[in-house]
Amino acid sequence: MAFPEKHPEDFLLPYSDIVSAAQRLRPYAVRTPLFENPALNEVLGARVLIKNEAFQRTGSFKFRGACNRALQLTPEQKQGGIVAWSSGNHAQGVAAACAMLGIAATIVMPEDAPLAKLNGTKAYGATVRLYDRQKEDREAIGHAIANKTGAALVPPYDDPHVMAGQGTVGLEIMEQTHALGVVPDCVLASSSGGGLIAGIATAVKERSPRTAVYAAEPAEFDDLARSLHSGKRESNPPDAQSICDSLQASTPGILTFSVNKRLLAGSLAVSDKEVLHAMKTAFATLKLVLEPGGACPLAALLSGKLDIRGKVAVIVCSGGNVDTDMFMRALQS
Amino acid sequence: MAFPEKHPEDFLLPYSDIVSAAQRLRPYAVRTPLFENPALNEVLGARVLIKNEAFQRTGSFKFRGACNRALQLTPEQKQGGIVAWSSGNHAQGVAAACAMLGIAATIVMPEDAPLAKLNGTKAYGATVRLYDRQKEDREAIGHAIANKTGAALVPPYDDPHVMAGQGTVGLEIMEQTHALGVVPDCVLASSSGGGLIAGIATAVKERSPRTAVYAAEPAEFDDLARSLHSGKRESNPPDAQSICDSLQASTPGILTFSVNKRLLAGSLAVSDKEVLHAMKTAFATLKLVLEPGGACPLAALLSGKLDIRGKVAVIVCSGGNVDTDMFMRALQS
Repeated sequence: MAFPEKHPEDFLLPYSDIVSAAQRLRPYAVRTPLFENPALNEVLGARVLIKNEAFQRTGSFKFRGACNRALQLTPEQKQGGIVAWSSGNHAQGVAAACAMLGIAATIVMPEDAPLAKLNGTKAYGATVRLYDRQKEDREAIGHAIANKTGAALVPPYDDPHVMAGQGTVGLEIMEQTHALGVVPDCVLASSSGGGLIAGIATAVKERSPRTAVYAAEPAEFDDLARSLHSGKRESNPPDAQSICDSLQASTPGILTFSVNKRLLAGSLAVSDKEVLHAMKTAFATLKLVLEPGGACPLAALLSGKLDIRGKVAVIVCSGGNVDTDMFMRALQS
Repeated sequence: MAFPEKHPEDFLLPYSDIVSAAQRLRPYAVRTPLFENPALNEVLGARVLIKNEAFQRTGSFKFRGACNRALQLTPEQKQGGIVAWSSGNHAQGVAAACAMLGIAATIVMPEDAPLAKLNGTKAYGATVRLYDRQKEDREAIGHAIANKTGAALVPPYDDPHVMAGQGTVGLEIMEQTHALGVVPDCVLASSSGGGLIAGIATAVKERSPRTAVYAAEPAEFDDLARSLHSGKRESNPPDAQSICDSLQASTPGILTFSVNKRLLAGSLAVSDKEVLHAMKTAFATLKLVLEPGGACPLAALLSGKLDIRGKVAVIVCSGGNVDTDMFMRALQS
C-alpha cells in the first residue's frame, strides 16, 4: 500500500490523483479560505496570501490525507479498523476521519505529545496507545497492532493516497489565486516527512510550472534541506530538539523525497526563536493562532530567508494545535 | 455633519449609502472572509458562519466607517486634518485611513487604553492626546482641538457616513451567504454606540427581511438591551466595569438607536466570564485571536442566550486587538 511502485525512488504523484482526492473530500473537508493581511504585506514589501489550514477540520491539513486514505478502504478493511502513529496532527486527522466514516481507530502517540493533540484525538473516539519516544519504536507497535487485529495502516506521509489528500491544499491554492487573478511567484509550506509539500508541489507545478515551491523546516530537523543538497535521503541526529513538535520525522519519506527532489526549489530552515517570533506576529498582526510547526513558512519570510520583495507569495499555515503554555511562551518571546 | 436630519430620532440609514460605501472602500478595505468551523457547528447544533473583522485593516471593522467618512471630506477639510476620540479601535481606523489618504490625524485616547491599541494608533502616524477617563471629557477635548485647528470631527458611531461604512460588513455577509446558497436565520454583532449593528441591520434587513439581527453587549453595559425594552435611550452607571474595553459607550447614539429600535430583534448581554470563555474557545477551536469586545456574539451563542439549533447563524467577530495579558487571562480562565 505504501509502496505501490516497483521503483519507489522514482515515484511521482499523478496530478489526477489530487483532482480525484478533491472530489472525494468535498463532503468532508473544509475548503479553507485564502486571505491576506495589509500590515504583513507592508512589512514584507510583497503580496502574501495566507492559506490557513489551522481552519481545517481537526486544526491541521492532516485530515485531508487521512480522510482520502480512509475513503478508499474496502468494506472489509473498514471493518478491521485503522491503526496509525503520530505526534498528534495525523492522529487527530485519522481519528476524525474514522469517526465520520464509522471506522475503529487506534493511534500510537508519544507520551509527551501536546495535551491539545492527545485530548483532541481521544475526543474523536480513537483508542490511544501511548509510547516512550526514547525506549519504544512507534512503527513496530503500529505493525504489531495491525498484525494482531487486521487493522489497516495509514502512514502519516509515505503513501500516495495520503500525499494526494494533502495535495488538495495546493489545488485549492491554484484555484483561489486564479479567482484573484494572480499567479503566485512562490508557495511555501512546512515539511517533516514531506507529504504536504510533495502534494502541494505536484498540484502547483502542474498548474504553474514557473511557480517556485519551497519547504520550510526547523533548523534542528533540516534533513530535507540537506537531502535536496546531497541528492539522497539524509537523517537528523537522534538527539535533535525543536519546539516544532509536528515536524520531527527522522528522515524524508521515500516516496515524498522522490517527488520533492524533482519539484522543490529548496527548503528553508528556521530556528526556534524565529518560529516563536512568527507565532507572536500571527497573534498580534494576523490575529491567527498557529502552532510552531504551522508557523515555519511565516518564520522563513519574516526572517528574510527568501527575497520576495514585489512578488506574490503563498504561505501555508499548516496547523494551529498548540498548548496554552507554548503559546504563552511565544507571546512572551 | 453628525446630525443631518431635522428629526434625528427618526433617522433611517439609506441602504444605497451602504452600497456606495462598499464601492468607495473597495480599494482600501479588506473584504474579510466568511467561514465556518465544523467543531463549533457540532457543539452548537447549527451552521455558524464567522465574519471575522479581526482580519480587517487595523484589526477591527472600525477602519470601514472611518475611511468612508475620510473619503468624503472636501480637499479643504482634508487640509485641516481630522480629530477623533476612541478607546482604540476607532482610533486605529481613523489613523490608518488618514495615513492612506495623506490627512493629519489627532486622536484623543484614554490613558488606560490597551497598549496594542495605543501603539497601533501611533504606528499609523497619528498624534495621540491622552486623557484621564475619571477627570476629563474626551468629547470636550476633541471639540476644543477641532475649534483651534479647524480639523474635522469623525465621531465613532453617530454619523451616517460612519454607519454606512460599518454597514458594508452586513452587505458582504449577504453577498457571501448568497454565494454559499444560504439565507441566514440570524446575524449577531457587538454593540457599544451601535454603529456597527445599525449598519449591518440596515443591509441585512434590506436583503432578507426575515433574518433576525441581534446585538451582543457586556452585561455591565447593557444600555442597548434596556433601551430596546423601554423604547428610549438608557444609560449605563458611570462606575460600570467590563473587560470589553471597546464596548463602553455610556448610552446608545441618537442616530444609531433610531435605526436599531426599528430593525433589531434584541440585544443579548454577556458576562465577562462568558466573554473569556468565548476567547478561549476562539483560541482552542477556531484558532482565532479575538479581543473581548469582538467575542461577545460568540459568547452569546456558547452560553445559550439564543436558540439556534438547526439554524444558520452569522456571527461577526468584530476585532482582535487584545493585549498579551488579557489574552493569557482568557487562556487561563
